[in-house]
Amino acid sequence: MKLYDLEASGNCYKVRLFASLANIELDIEPVDFLGGAHKQPPLADLNPLGQLPILEDGSHVVRDSQAILVYLAGVYGGLAWWPAHPRGQAEIVQWLSFAANEVQHSLCAARLVQKFGYPLDQSVALASSPAVLALLDKHLERHDWLAIGRPSIADCAVYPYVALAPEGGVDLGPYSHIARWMTRLEALPGYLPKP
Amino acid sequence: MKLYDLEASGNCYKVRLFASLANIELDIEPVDFLGGAHKQPPLADLNPLGQLPILEDGSHVVRDSQAILVYLAGVYGGLAWWPAHPRGQAEIVQWLSFAANEVQHSLCAARLVQKFGYPLDQSVALASSPAVLALLDKHLERHDWLAIGRPSIADCAVYPYVALAPEGGVDLGPYSHIARWMTRLEALPGYLPKP
Repeated sequence: MKLYDLEASGNCYKVRLFASLANIELDIEPVDFLGGAHKQPPLADLNPLGQLPILEDGSHVVRDSQAILVYLAGVYGGLAWWPAHPRGQAEIVQWLSFAANEVQHSLCAARLVQKFGYPLDQSVALASSPAVLALLDKHLERHDWLAIGRPSIADCAVYPYVALAPEGGVDLGPYSHIARWMTRLEALPGYLPKP
Repeated sequence: MKLYDLEASGNCYKVRLFASLANIELDIEPVDFLGGAHKQPPLADLNPLGQLPILEDGSHVVRDSQAILVYLAGVYGGLAWWPAHPRGQAEIVQWLSFAANEVQHSLCAARLVQKFGYPLDQSVALASSPAVLALLDKHLERHDWLAIGRPSIADCAVYPYVALAPEGGVDLGPYSHIARWMTRLEALPGYLPKP
């Protein structure tokens, strides 16, 4: 099973992190991102959005880091990480949307500008980051994990860009519950350190 | 089962549309959005993001339109709209992420500015819309539905802001495959017309 990967990408790290926690073996294929390989065939045929990561499992292709987490957890991870009951699935999907929308357009965007020079509005990204982190911190004040009362793919989807936020100029100092959640996650068997 | 709703919101319409297609009865509770009721308790306690829609099923609360679709389909909609197999679920989640990220920050954002005066960058939203629509159109050239070869919650998540795109100044004229997909969806039993 092949993961088209960029080491520095938080979205790719979501998948590598989960695979490591769930003991799923991936054949990591580094992509020439600076050379734009992800924007050209054959990769652009696998993912027309021109984004990484992409998972190739035999002839089956999955794009989008959140969808890859669902696929890997559902097919290979067992019920621990993605339960069969729709109530738990919906609880997790709330956080997958949070990762794809709120986190992507705040913490991730700030890092893309600061670390990689992306032409995004750094001030907008930085202005929206505290509300995202405050919401997360408040949730984690009363919960050890984001969903279903245990580690799940929700944590794997949200942790990477939170852990990498300081690279975008975002200060994690004020968020003690987030800090304790990160420590819990980093203590799980199979934890893969952030890039 | 109560849906805290705003008639004009495409995210709320995703849920009302799916419930109507799947014949799920909802008690619609209009929210005083202009008065900011969604930003204050008790609604802000149900959804700390301060967003609509919110679903309340007895004591169980689900926020985020994509997660509500998973919940309603999984608990009440049967396997037709959200299959039990993780390969199909992941195929659908690809489009739920696309709805939460790409569609939200292009078609939806353009409409928020033009129709409701939101303080977002209209030029950025309009500039990213053609790529989003072109990708969708290309996918629909070879597929009748977004995922799993039949109507699913993926279509319900993406259709609303595509159908409402002209209200944001986006021209759907060039996208003939999208037009035919919309016609197919609008012909389904139980289709609920857009707001």
